[in-house]
Amino acid sequence: MVGREEFTLSAKPCVLVYAEDDPEVGPPPWDLLDDVEVVPAGGPVPPAAEILYVWDHRLADLGALLRAAPRVRWVHANSVGVDRLLCPELRGRTLTNARGVFDTSITEWVLAAVLAHVKGLAETWERQRRGVWEHRVTGRLAGRRAAVVGTGSIGRATASGLSALGMTVELVGRTSERAGGGRGSDSLTKVARDADVLVLALPLTAETAGLVDAPVLEALGPDGFLVNVGRGRSVVEADLANALRSGLIAGAALDVFEVEPLPANSPLWTLPGVLVSPHMAGDYQGFEADMMSIFGDNLHRWQAGRPLRNVVDLDLGYVPG
Amino acid sequence: MVGREEFTLSAKPCVLVYAEDDPEVGPPPWDLLDDVEVVPAGGPVPPAAEILYVWDHRLADLGALLRAAPRVRWVHANSVGVDRLLCPELRGRTLTNARGVFDTSITEWVLAAVLAHVKGLAETWERQRRGVWEHRVTGRLAGRRAAVVGTGSIGRATASGLSALGMTVELVGRTSERAGGGRGSDSLTKVARDADVLVLALPLTAETAGLVDAPVLEALGPDGFLVNVGRGRSVVEADLANALRSGLIAGAALDVFEVEPLPANSPLWTLPGVLVSPHMAGDYQGFEADMMSIFGDNLHRWQAGRPLRNVVDLDLGYVPG
Repeated sequence: MVGREEFTLSAKPCVLVYAEDDPEVGPPPWDLLDDVEVVPAGGPVPPAAEILYVWDHRLADLGALLRAAPRVRWVHANSVGVDRLLCPELRGRTLTNARGVFDTSITEWVLAAVLAHVKGLAETWERQRRGVWEHRVTGRLAGRRAAVVGTGSIGRATASGLSALGMTVELVGRTSERAGGGRGSDSLTKVARDADVLVLALPLTAETAGLVDAPVLEALGPDGFLVNVGRGRSVVEADLANALRSGLIAGAALDVFEVEPLPANSPLWTLPGVLVSPHMAGDYQGFEADMMSIFGDNLHRWQAGRPLRNVVDLDLGYVPG
Repeated sequence: MVGREEFTLSAKPCVLVYAEDDPEVGPPPWDLLDDVEVVPAGGPVPPAAEILYVWDHRLADLGALLRAAPRVRWVHANSVGVDRLLCPELRGRTLTNARGVFDTSITEWVLAAVLAHVKGLAETWERQRRGVWEHRVTGRLAGRRAAVVGTGSIGRATASGLSALGMTVELVGRTSERAGGGRGSDSLTKVARDADVLVLALPLTAETAGLVDAPVLEALGPDGFLVNVGRGRSVVEADLANALRSGLIAGAALDVFEVEPLPANSPLWTLPGVLVSPHMAGDYQGFEADMMSIFGDNLHRWQAGRPLRNVVDLDLGYVPG
């Protein structure tokens, strides 16, 4: 009987979950899963808890949680970028992420931002607020050149979307970054020189931190437009502010920043041609259910002893391939 | 010798041109054409003038110009919509237009407006102006339904662009409009009921005037979004203002209006979810050269006695097919 009871216990997976009580990130929709036992992370850890679901991606100290839950073998993150989660305690454990869930929504946000820039929608709304009817001649996107840096699923989807709009698109990954030598900055300068629109869809790693600096922005040029949907620290924000202030580039659409929320004294709030978006490009009505669906699929794999999807390479800091 | 001189004269085409001295519409780039004799319309008309080029599409009285130039046999319009130009004096003459030149630019403007609506860019910019960091969850366009009313080159290009973004698109022309009986309003109500985004790319004719009224807007529904890039009078603006005020529809992107410039007291300037664009969706850097290129191609055809392109059906009021 003891053996049978243990079997029953292990058949109902016990999931530690980190979720803040915060309206910005709603509660996990557990009802979408089959029967699971959910235990808040941070309190007493049941012996059966082998899984930690980081529902709120803003978790500051995964290491502390894992030290208190030595039997956790699999950590699933509700985000694509996992830079905040990487810690020595993950060694010997499996980390998976939500890769794929934001592909369409972020692609659409990038297209919205780039088209709005080319068509001058911010300026049109500004005149509308003042009740001013003022005809202007704006640009066309078709035939112009984009470079998308980052070959993950978001980068590939974004490149495909820009291509569907008639842009010539170069998709830039580690290989071509490295071809120029150094950490890729040299070749990124070449990439930027050939691009009208430079889109960053990069994880934050030692190689990508500070990748876009003054020389890259200068190469992008006075008609150039920068989009960042990856991580803020891929861009040297002081260099970007200087470039925008001096007209070294035409504008930027930023969903991510070195420090979030963007500090009140950041010049980016008011510099011309800038869209400041509060890290929301990926979130769409119903994304919580799609998040849970990715976790649920992996949970079934875990229970069946099959390989998990979206496994992060802990050395690279993202899901390769 | 006289005969030879006459031959020389007729080999250099004499073109009457209507162009206001107005920075909004620059001067025609005649240098892009082979040798032509250009004569301002409205003054003395040389006997050799068989062609009138309406460079400024805002010409108010084509009839008066044509009565003063009885030998003009071909009128070319620098616009796609020709509703302002249609007059009895065109009978027995050929009217051509600039069909095709705005296809890409207007498509991009429609995509910009629709994506900006779904992604809430106006609201993001509004918060940015106030320095407010406020995460929101917005929508996704892929999988939603669009109806594009108008099967001319602009309507077809726009439908294709929305389809490339993953929307399900219905292209609605005269046939399906008429299927519902009356002037098409009945069936347009059905079309609107099945659409999240309703795009108007229509010429202004007796059949299209007032086509979008309160019942159509009610059918479009509280999540519905209206886009008009055709002619303002296709929409009953009072009904549209009521629909926006009461939340009967979610928003509208308007490049054209019943009266242009939009009067200062129009409620559309300030109603929620509205983009007021001063009839500029089609104009892009370099469009003047493309305009002249369309005219130049037809001029070669005229000189060679070949059929002209973009010939307007004077009964329909647009270029069919």
